[in-house]
Amino acid sequence: MGILKEGADHERERYARILLSQWCEAGDRALGARVRERGAHVVVEEVLAGHSPLPTSTGIGARVPGGTTYDDAMGRWVEPAWATAERTGARYVVPGDLEWPSQLDDLRDASPLGLWLAGAGDLRLLALRSISVVGARSATAYGEGIARELGAHLAECDWLTVSGGAFGIDAAAHRGALAVGGATACVLAGGVDVPYPRSHADLLARIRDSGVLVSEAPLGGAAMRHRFLTRNRIIAALSRGTVLVEAAIRSGGRSTVREAGLLNRVVMAFPGPVTSPMSGGCHAVIRDETAELVTSPREVLALVEGWLTSDAPGGADDEGESLGWRERRVLDAVPARRPAPLASIARLAGLGLAEAMTALGTLDALGLVQRAGEGWARRAA
Amino acid sequence: MGILKEGADHERERYARILLSQWCEAGDRALGARVRERGAHVVVEEVLAGHSPLPTSTGIGARVPGGTTYDDAMGRWVEPAWATAERTGARYVVPGDLEWPSQLDDLRDASPLGLWLAGAGDLRLLALRSISVVGARSATAYGEGIARELGAHLAECDWLTVSGGAFGIDAAAHRGALAVGGATACVLAGGVDVPYPRSHADLLARIRDSGVLVSEAPLGGAAMRHRFLTRNRIIAALSRGTVLVEAAIRSGGRSTVREAGLLNRVVMAFPGPVTSPMSGGCHAVIRDETAELVTSPREVLALVEGWLTSDAPGGADDEGESLGWRERRVLDAVPARRPAPLASIARLAGLGLAEAMTALGTLDALGLVQRAGEGWARRAA
Repeated sequence: MGILKEGADHERERYARILLSQWCEAGDRALGARVRERGAHVVVEEVLAGHSPLPTSTGIGARVPGGTTYDDAMGRWVEPAWATAERTGARYVVPGDLEWPSQLDDLRDASPLGLWLAGAGDLRLLALRSISVVGARSATAYGEGIARELGAHLAECDWLTVSGGAFGIDAAAHRGALAVGGATACVLAGGVDVPYPRSHADLLARIRDSGVLVSEAPLGGAAMRHRFLTRNRIIAALSRGTVLVEAAIRSGGRSTVREAGLLNRVVMAFPGPVTSPMSGGCHAVIRDETAELVTSPREVLALVEGWLTSDAPGGADDEGESLGWRERRVLDAVPARRPAPLASIARLAGLGLAEAMTALGTLDALGLVQRAGEGWARRAA
Repeated sequence: MGILKEGADHERERYARILLSQWCEAGDRALGARVRERGAHVVVEEVLAGHSPLPTSTGIGARVPGGTTYDDAMGRWVEPAWATAERTGARYVVPGDLEWPSQLDDLRDASPLGLWLAGAGDLRLLALRSISVVGARSATAYGEGIARELGAHLAECDWLTVSGGAFGIDAAAHRGALAVGGATACVLAGGVDVPYPRSHADLLARIRDSGVLVSEAPLGGAAMRHRFLTRNRIIAALSRGTVLVEAAIRSGGRSTVREAGLLNRVVMAFPGPVTSPMSGGCHAVIRDETAELVTSPREVLALVEGWLTSDAPGGADDEGESLGWRERRVLDAVPARRPAPLASIARLAGLGLAEAMTALGTLDALGLVQRAGEGWARRAA
């Protein structure tokens, strides 16, 4: 292959992820593990050479005709995707990009290969202070009222509402945030250029104007049923906490909540009348202690912010969880790749210069950041 | 004193408890401790002799004029009580009596000296399988509906509903039990011969007909405010579990629940709309883990009887989640409306023909798809 510059390596990796995301369904752990281990480009080369060690359950070879060359693949899958992205104003972010929300790495082997984004908002910055609001499509007026109020309150307190754009709770949460001029992020099961449900085209356009549409599905990808389930892990991983507003005993919202719990996010649920089947799923997750009972937007923020300032539920095991809230915010505000000046870090973290400086000193001592020229940068792990 | 037969000893002890219950307010721990240690008769003798070691906070001597003899006391307090009991059909049970519910001994120094009972039911036998249902006087229709249904279900399953005869939740629970011909017990704050609240005279008469009225207050005693709080410990101690149906954040029901928790009884609460202040107390005790969340009478009994069956939360998933990944993909690839040929289903699912065929067979067996002409279609739900 010859020697490539680091930037070129990164772009090659990006193309490889675009290819793999079209060759396999999202969230495949065997594929994810191999990509983590060898890089996406190597996996692509293996497939093209016809000797991928991945199990056929990944479907990895099925869509690639024998004899396909790298150039063929670029022409057939990457260039059309790129053209569509150009036309629809979408962008593709991968780990290592400035806009990559690194909390998704908590998903490990199930981490998305990359994300298609569309919208004015910067996903990584917005998601630093984000809460997912999920629940039933066939919500009641009670649940929609809670979701709308929650979306509005979060926006007023400068927290991003993340949801899935569906009928019912999702739409009410997005609308609540938009109603007070806040940003909101919608994680779609299909492509970011495919309004789904169709009747939410206007809502999705509004979300895109001030916030961001997110999907790991290829551009033009249909919102198929299994993609909703895999999509839910991204909603759970993106944000600090997940709130279940209304859900039947059997509901996709419960899968999001379960995922959020596994990721040590704050998991919350609103109770409701026991006579309402739409609260049955909420009561179930409160009872089995998957979720904490909350009764107001204020309590939601108190739990999430309390968790930010104290130790995570389940005990601190990685360095991020043992940091104080100032340090954690400052660490989040230090870009992953290139240095940033103190002033911009402080502003992003919502702290004064002196506080930010102190926190940077702590992080420096912990080996997490380092001085770089006039600014500060993350230290490689 | 001469030698008394054991039976006579027991009666002398009963008279002493009648005296003490008129001399002191119920639930006094200093008095209770001394009675447990020396017996009630000795405590009475000490008071009459003017050298009781009990603190004046018990009010022990205050109602007994100096120079009162044992015979005076019998004539002044026991004989009138006895006459009233005769007239009103009340009986007085003390520890050691067949009808004494020995679970009250869990209250230790706060155990009642004795209980006045009125009604057809045997308190000890009834209370062996009993659940207390408590909550707000100013209940909503939602809460009263739950309480009524709970009382009825408990009665149908041969469990006694214990409550306090008040407006709102209490009355609804009693009425639910009575409506299906069940017995119910009412623990009153005043005397068992004093209908309180007055407008519940009919309800209390019906409870007495099939169940039992209970109070540690002297016959004729008024339902004074502090007696409600001390009464609550008896409601909590009598039964295996206490259910809070509706309660404001500040409510007497929460004191019963707290007491039940201290006594290691099963403590349960029904959630409700977060928009209802009358569910605030329930949500608070669920959140602080004083109470377990319950959503139906069946769950109340399941918790009290100590088994939680398979339809418990966390178990049931929907069919989509229990399918294998191949089946799920294939199911998604089968169009909702018109049949598709195997080849197109396989391509959409990213699987080989043989694999897709196998998955379709599984889905067919599960009743989710069916052959249609040359292809496959979804089967209507």
